[in-house]
Amino acid sequence: MADEVIFEFLHMEIVDHIHKESSNEEKEQGISKLEALGFRVGQSLIERLTKECSRFKDELDTMKFLCKDLWNLVYKKQIDNLRTNHQGVYVLQDNRFKFLVQMSTGKQYMESAPKYLAFPCGMIRGALSNLGINCIVTAEVSAMPACKFQIQIQRS
Amino acid sequence: MADEVIFEFLHMEIVDHIHKESSNEEKEQGISKLEALGFRVGQSLIERLTKECSRFKDELDTMKFLCKDLWNLVYKKQIDNLRTNHQGVYVLQDNRFKFLVQMSTGKQYMESAPKYLAFPCGMIRGALSNLGINCIVTAEVSAMPACKFQIQIQRS
Repeated sequence: MADEVIFEFLHMEIVDHIHKESSNEEKEQGISKLEALGFRVGQSLIERLTKECSRFKDELDTMKFLCKDLWNLVYKKQIDNLRTNHQGVYVLQDNRFKFLVQMSTGKQYMESAPKYLAFPCGMIRGALSNLGINCIVTAEVSAMPACKFQIQIQRS
Repeated sequence: MADEVIFEFLHMEIVDHIHKESSNEEKEQGISKLEALGFRVGQSLIERLTKECSRFKDELDTMKFLCKDLWNLVYKKQIDNLRTNHQGVYVLQDNRFKFLVQMSTGKQYMESAPKYLAFPCGMIRGALSNLGINCIVTAEVSAMPACKFQIQIQRS
């Protein structure tokens, strides 16, 4: 059995746990909690992952590392497509995002997708934050199980 | 970097999350929540793990599977010692339990050990429950990072 199922099962249970304990009005708060959890995991992961790395050339180089090394570690695959407008917006597309693969592809299930995307959004934000890049990360599902993560760099 | 760190980081963050949101009186409730989370993860894991397994010979055979296969999957090592009184009590000893290895060995840290042991206790209980064995699982730390899990079978 593949190792990553433990992570997957644990993630599912956390989503479920945080979701269950939130009332309807608090659903958004639940999403924030998952995002915050992902943020801290992302911070820890990138710290370990870059321990013996040389410094990144530029922002794009950092993004490539995320798409390849971080994604591979967590989801056992690379991001399928990376795009940028060269003005601080990056779009990472995963054509078979692991947390969505198990779900039915019907449109009605897309509604529950956000709760499975909060953790990875936070994880990306946490990883980049530890590399000195402040950003806003959002996710969008157009056709299950494909998913786009949009990273908007916040210049100060 | 080893794969299991993701699971480890995620587990640490959950413990932290559940602990932080519980007031002092609710600390025990927090422990129950972690145990329940572990229970469901244990159920899912054992289901996958035994999919292509032949039936276990007896209770002891089941325990051996837990000590070897389940522990290896989750903690990348086997249980170091398995004992039983042949009357429904099993003691599983892990001499270097992963969730405790990172902690300092001072006596004052042993107080915070229980919150790291709730998930694995639940996981054992969930795994056995799915194999038709009802039990109570408790954990005890005598000298960090060694840990004993006691399984008490509940005959009905």
